[in-house]
Amino acid sequence: MPSSPIRKLAPLANEAKRQGVKVYHLNIGQPDLPTPQKGLDALKAIDRKTLEYSPSEGLAMLREKLVKYYAKFNITDITAENIIITSGGSEAILFAFLACMNPGDEMIMVEPGYANYISFAVTAGIKVVTVTSYIEDGFKLPPMEDFERAITDKTKAILLCNPNNPTGYVYSPEELQQLKELVVKHDLYLIADEVYREFVYTNEPYVSAMSLGIPEHVILVDSVSKRYSECGIRVGMLVTRNRLVYDTVMKYCQARLSPPLLGQLVADASIEGTEEYSKQCYNEYKERRDFFIKGLNSIPGVYSPMPHGAFYTVASLPVADAEDFCRWCLTDFRMDGETVMMAPAAGFYRNPDLGRNQVRLAYVLKKEDLQRALMLLRGALKAYNRRTVY
Amino acid sequence: MPSSPIRKLAPLANEAKRQGVKVYHLNIGQPDLPTPQKGLDALKAIDRKTLEYSPSEGLAMLREKLVKYYAKFNITDITAENIIITSGGSEAILFAFLACMNPGDEMIMVEPGYANYISFAVTAGIKVVTVTSYIEDGFKLPPMEDFERAITDKTKAILLCNPNNPTGYVYSPEELQQLKELVVKHDLYLIADEVYREFVYTNEPYVSAMSLGIPEHVILVDSVSKRYSECGIRVGMLVTRNRLVYDTVMKYCQARLSPPLLGQLVADASIEGTEEYSKQCYNEYKERRDFFIKGLNSIPGVYSPMPHGAFYTVASLPVADAEDFCRWCLTDFRMDGETVMMAPAAGFYRNPDLGRNQVRLAYVLKKEDLQRALMLLRGALKAYNRRTVY
Repeated sequence: MPSSPIRKLAPLANEAKRQGVKVYHLNIGQPDLPTPQKGLDALKAIDRKTLEYSPSEGLAMLREKLVKYYAKFNITDITAENIIITSGGSEAILFAFLACMNPGDEMIMVEPGYANYISFAVTAGIKVVTVTSYIEDGFKLPPMEDFERAITDKTKAILLCNPNNPTGYVYSPEELQQLKELVVKHDLYLIADEVYREFVYTNEPYVSAMSLGIPEHVILVDSVSKRYSECGIRVGMLVTRNRLVYDTVMKYCQARLSPPLLGQLVADASIEGTEEYSKQCYNEYKERRDFFIKGLNSIPGVYSPMPHGAFYTVASLPVADAEDFCRWCLTDFRMDGETVMMAPAAGFYRNPDLGRNQVRLAYVLKKEDLQRALMLLRGALKAYNRRTVY
Repeated sequence: MPSSPIRKLAPLANEAKRQGVKVYHLNIGQPDLPTPQKGLDALKAIDRKTLEYSPSEGLAMLREKLVKYYAKFNITDITAENIIITSGGSEAILFAFLACMNPGDEMIMVEPGYANYISFAVTAGIKVVTVTSYIEDGFKLPPMEDFERAITDKTKAILLCNPNNPTGYVYSPEELQQLKELVVKHDLYLIADEVYREFVYTNEPYVSAMSLGIPEHVILVDSVSKRYSECGIRVGMLVTRNRLVYDTVMKYCQARLSPPLLGQLVADASIEGTEEYSKQCYNEYKERRDFFIKGLNSIPGVYSPMPHGAFYTVASLPVADAEDFCRWCLTDFRMDGETVMMAPAAGFYRNPDLGRNQVRLAYVLKKEDLQRALMLLRGALKAYNRRTVY
């Protein structure tokens, strides 16, 4: 079981904080934006006497509201019976893996990719095979030949995160079309993690895997964590029109009895009537992105492509070993009692030779803090590269 | 992946309810008692603006309080750094399996046993080997020779649920001493699910596996679900002094990011100053047990041993196939527009020949409802056995 590259340096950060150092967190996608007031108010309005199990598949009222929500994103032809509420998107990913594959089966994903996919694959006993996207291409979808080469008779699924975590890349309709043909040709599942669908900063309409016309192949993974700043309530979803997959996922759901009741009540209250909230979040992230990426690229030796979605980017730094640099920032570097925390990107690659000089950065801090974090990064790079190594 | 014997008949129950039939649930351990007012009040008092991730290991304040809680049950020599908060006891069980064993390893448990252990074992790729306890012995611990016979060079752990779900059996200090010697002799883990520790109806002090003097061997699984009627908040714990196990579990915790924040706030508020509440619950369950077990044994052909803990019992019925009978109760049997739902006990056995005429019953309904459920069971057995089968 690998350690989370996002959280593995947490003990060093905690130690720095204990020393009184202020740490700017660029390492984790924990939005600082407020939760919708309607969601918070729902907590005050709970008048249950007993906080009982919810159904294993989640509360019906929440699943009904989600049907309407998805329709706004052109995800149609589904009913509440296609939706299962999970304990965060994390559980939806694990259950999708467990339901679609047997131990020893293979799944293909693009690298760099969300590191915890690997952890869930280890849990499910499946082998992850990666095809590589490159920073110099802006992390676009690798050519289909690379996928074809990766496919064996054990390949059962392709996993796509769109918009992408960690790169922020948004796959184009043409790229999705190519993937669709591949999936049909080899009769694979397409597991689509679309938790960042509301954060697409281009003007093109977002295309969900659920809209590709291959309903039997697609398992959609979703979560309210990021779009409503509700990471802590642990409410995700798995959506599929494949009945066999649905039924198998339900067995796992029944084993763990129930998704979190309180989180479901908050999520239920957050879905409707929060359009203005969502627009504000969107504008805020877009502004931060423009500011942050420009700032990054102004630091000597740093390069980040322009991400068109989510709130992450993978940037290359002028260092040989970004993990060593990230550790050093937490243990040694201080500027006016402050430092910066980043996630080494190597943990997002399977190939140990790749991404060694890259970091994943989340722009979920307010602009002043991003500005300060950029200054700290600039200063840290200067100091790190000036050290005399004996 | 097997279906949950506790929830698999849920669609039939739902269909009955749709027809307007009132269903008495003896199948599931969903307590009807209220959640402590302090826990409910904590929800009203939340003044956070953002419902953010909690630390992967859970909130420090909650873990600190748990240290004091455990001390009251003679579980000492632990600190908050030995405790990990999980998404219900379910996740603690899964993580214990994943951390202590590799795919292909074997774990021994007593049957009948909590059915979802099997599901989590399937998820973790481990093989469950059972030793059988018998209704005619009151489901006491099987002799050590049976365990010895079950041990192979792949055996890595023994799983013990004490007080036992589904049988309600409370293991004696002597039985635990035997298990301890076995665990040490074969260098095994002892995974101890003690979520029902507060519901022991004998006057003897409860002995936790954590108090056996073999800290490196023991992984304690716990949950607030049952003791505070908080099943829906999904807050469990894994406690261990084995540092390697702790560190491995933490990797799984980091992959799933965070346990539920809101549930932790409720649990945190429920632990202290609720002694009077706990005493009331205890007395209520004890009274129900006495009433329910007596009622069961007064039905012709029904037998239940007296369970000394938890709020379940496994009873034998005068039918050949209890699952068929349970189904029939939901689909065909009606008495004044009401029926009863039970969990077939066969799903709690690995050996398909065992428990065929048994059911698991939870006495978590109020006395009037238990009385009515007993009448329905009596009537259903009569009607079922009187049917003419062509």
